[in-house]
Amino acid sequence: MDINQYMHTLGQQARTASRALARADAGAKNKALLAIADDIRISALTLKQENARDLQAGQEKGLDAALLDRLELTNARIESMAEGLEQIAALPDPVGEISDMNYRPSGIQLGKMRVPLGVIGIIYESRPNVTADAAGLCLKSGNATILRGGSEAIHSNQAIAQCIHRGLQLAGLPTSAVQVVETTDRAAVGQLITMPEYVDVIVPRGGKSLIERISNDARVPVIKHLDGICHVYIDAAADLTMAEDIAVNAKCHRYGVCNAMETLLVDQAVAADILPRLAQRYAVESVELRGCEQTRIILPECIAATDEDWDTEYLAPILSIRVVAGIDEAMDHIHQHSSGHTETIVTEDYARSRRFLAEVDSSSVMVNASTRFADGFEYGLGAEIGISTDKLHARGPVGLEGLTSQKWIVLGSGQVRS
Amino acid sequence: MDINQYMHTLGQQARTASRALARADAGAKNKALLAIADDIRISALTLKQENARDLQAGQEKGLDAALLDRLELTNARIESMAEGLEQIAALPDPVGEISDMNYRPSGIQLGKMRVPLGVIGIIYESRPNVTADAAGLCLKSGNATILRGGSEAIHSNQAIAQCIHRGLQLAGLPTSAVQVVETTDRAAVGQLITMPEYVDVIVPRGGKSLIERISNDARVPVIKHLDGICHVYIDAAADLTMAEDIAVNAKCHRYGVCNAMETLLVDQAVAADILPRLAQRYAVESVELRGCEQTRIILPECIAATDEDWDTEYLAPILSIRVVAGIDEAMDHIHQHSSGHTETIVTEDYARSRRFLAEVDSSSVMVNASTRFADGFEYGLGAEIGISTDKLHARGPVGLEGLTSQKWIVLGSGQVRS
Repeated sequence: MDINQYMHTLGQQARTASRALARADAGAKNKALLAIADDIRISALTLKQENARDLQAGQEKGLDAALLDRLELTNARIESMAEGLEQIAALPDPVGEISDMNYRPSGIQLGKMRVPLGVIGIIYESRPNVTADAAGLCLKSGNATILRGGSEAIHSNQAIAQCIHRGLQLAGLPTSAVQVVETTDRAAVGQLITMPEYVDVIVPRGGKSLIERISNDARVPVIKHLDGICHVYIDAAADLTMAEDIAVNAKCHRYGVCNAMETLLVDQAVAADILPRLAQRYAVESVELRGCEQTRIILPECIAATDEDWDTEYLAPILSIRVVAGIDEAMDHIHQHSSGHTETIVTEDYARSRRFLAEVDSSSVMVNASTRFADGFEYGLGAEIGISTDKLHARGPVGLEGLTSQKWIVLGSGQVRS
Repeated sequence: MDINQYMHTLGQQARTASRALARADAGAKNKALLAIADDIRISALTLKQENARDLQAGQEKGLDAALLDRLELTNARIESMAEGLEQIAALPDPVGEISDMNYRPSGIQLGKMRVPLGVIGIIYESRPNVTADAAGLCLKSGNATILRGGSEAIHSNQAIAQCIHRGLQLAGLPTSAVQVVETTDRAAVGQLITMPEYVDVIVPRGGKSLIERISNDARVPVIKHLDGICHVYIDAAADLTMAEDIAVNAKCHRYGVCNAMETLLVDQAVAADILPRLAQRYAVESVELRGCEQTRIILPECIAATDEDWDTEYLAPILSIRVVAGIDEAMDHIHQHSSGHTETIVTEDYARSRRFLAEVDSSSVMVNASTRFADGFEYGLGAEIGISTDKLHARGPVGLEGLTSQKWIVLGSGQVRS
């Protein structure tokens, strides 16, 4: 098989399907989503058989236990895929939404209409449930999709693709609206990200090295998320009980997630009060603490943080702590070390809460809430295709709206320019 | 001078200035804009002296008359730069606008805040007035700017930069908020578009080859506009008098602009009626017509259009004409040949007007209005930094809002995730 030719064919088919999908009404799209959910439930046995082939190949290849776990399709995960599609069907259709219609002095009536982006390429790693989730979000937002999953999940992904195609057919939508790349050849990725004539945007999901490689090589816009180096700043005017709960939740609720806190900043005025209390809580959770010099005066048992710590996303029960002279030093630290994902201030001070909200340049900026809320479900987006730390287009959790754009529409009655 | 080192220094200074600018209130920014406008008026003589150096060098280099014209700073153009800045000062400040604040079931209050993008790099060709216009828009939207004008306008641009710096100083804003690259070395452009650590977005303004080169080489998002192949479709149910006026205005109001019509599509049901009337009007304006076979049966004097014509932005008194079987064929033609800029349907048919608005995938889609309205001033944006034919982020005319992004803000009262 000539990979370039194969990918061009997928691209052409996706571009053609994208026009049918952009025209499809919410009824047809929801019918397809519900039919795919039904088909996934009915096909549970087949899905598990195909998944078993991937698992066996993975074991033979010596994949580690964590990877094999992510790869496995259990009954619960199959049911969760189906439920996810039903939830997407229940969301309002963003396509065609008209806003800001106003008359201009020339007499034209001007506004904006929300429309699909067109064709979305999704590149992801081992978890096969992404195939259903991503296809569902793209379908609902009227976009055609080309999905390229990990080679270790190829049989599982192809089996899910069959369910999707049957659902699309039942709803009278073109099956090429969702195409799952059938080859494990890596050249397919290289081709997918360099076909601006067929693909409007790429969403890579996976480890940092995958995303960096794709960003560097893509000739198509990329909605991406690299790091989640999130900060909590405990201000001098913080409610210290609240600060304690937020700092523990932001670090310990889950370790391997991008919206977990990695660095705690504490105003020197309250450091001696709050740090020993926090150290006790973190000790219970077996969190390793790495502190600046001032932190270590208060917590002598704390390991010394190195320069590298401030730029590290641990994704683990490790926390770096720095005592700062005030909000300006805290914000300077954040501007220098944050990945632009999520930052929180804990304070009861009105002016400083406003400054933090206005001046911190991250996709989510919070007052008195855990960084863990930066999430598509918590934000009411229903589901998310990913979290963007870019500034253009979608920022933060990307749901249906992030998969659309707004075009200008003009209603006239014969106006010409003079 | 080491160009890379020089550009890095500009980048670092811009990044630092961008934080001060993001914090600056509307009062300070407007004060700076008005001070720059005053300074430009006061400095008219100096501006013309420096401009004369560029003009002389251009003549010696043998630049053509059109280029020399674009390069010239007349009294009227100097006044127009000053007025442009005053108009930008009068626009509402987009920064800090908070929208969609709602409580989530968790108790957090979630919304969006509009914020500057950060640092914007602008690359443009001969017209020195872009220096003032672009600096003004970026300043008002709270962004630091690095401007790289054409080498033929270097003295004019540096003189305008002096006015801008004096205005910034008077308003207490850092002068490095607007930096005009002082070298004409082309390596500066290569460096500017590959410093994602300092530059958040590049806006290239100029010919297609410049923009294509920058898009290909950039490591930073690019807000760009390549072609303006705009279409007018005269539907079977068009008011033919209206259609005639719109088709003439869209082609003849100005030829060298991106929102001029390049191809006219006519439903076969009205072609025999409208084409001879239009041919008369175009003859008066000396517009050369190039038609499909059916067009040439109705207008035998018309030149035969080649395949290339449908993909050509003439920017000249030339028009390609194609007779189509109906709206589907018209939209197929547009999808195949349009550059995604602006398309118009002329019709009195309700259903077809809705289909055209929904299904045509261009940055501006119009019913019964001239394509010439696709413009920042006509759309009420006050001014535009450019017109984007991309789908992500800003689409169509890009004004202040297109130079900002929205971050999520969360107001809590101690919420943690359970």
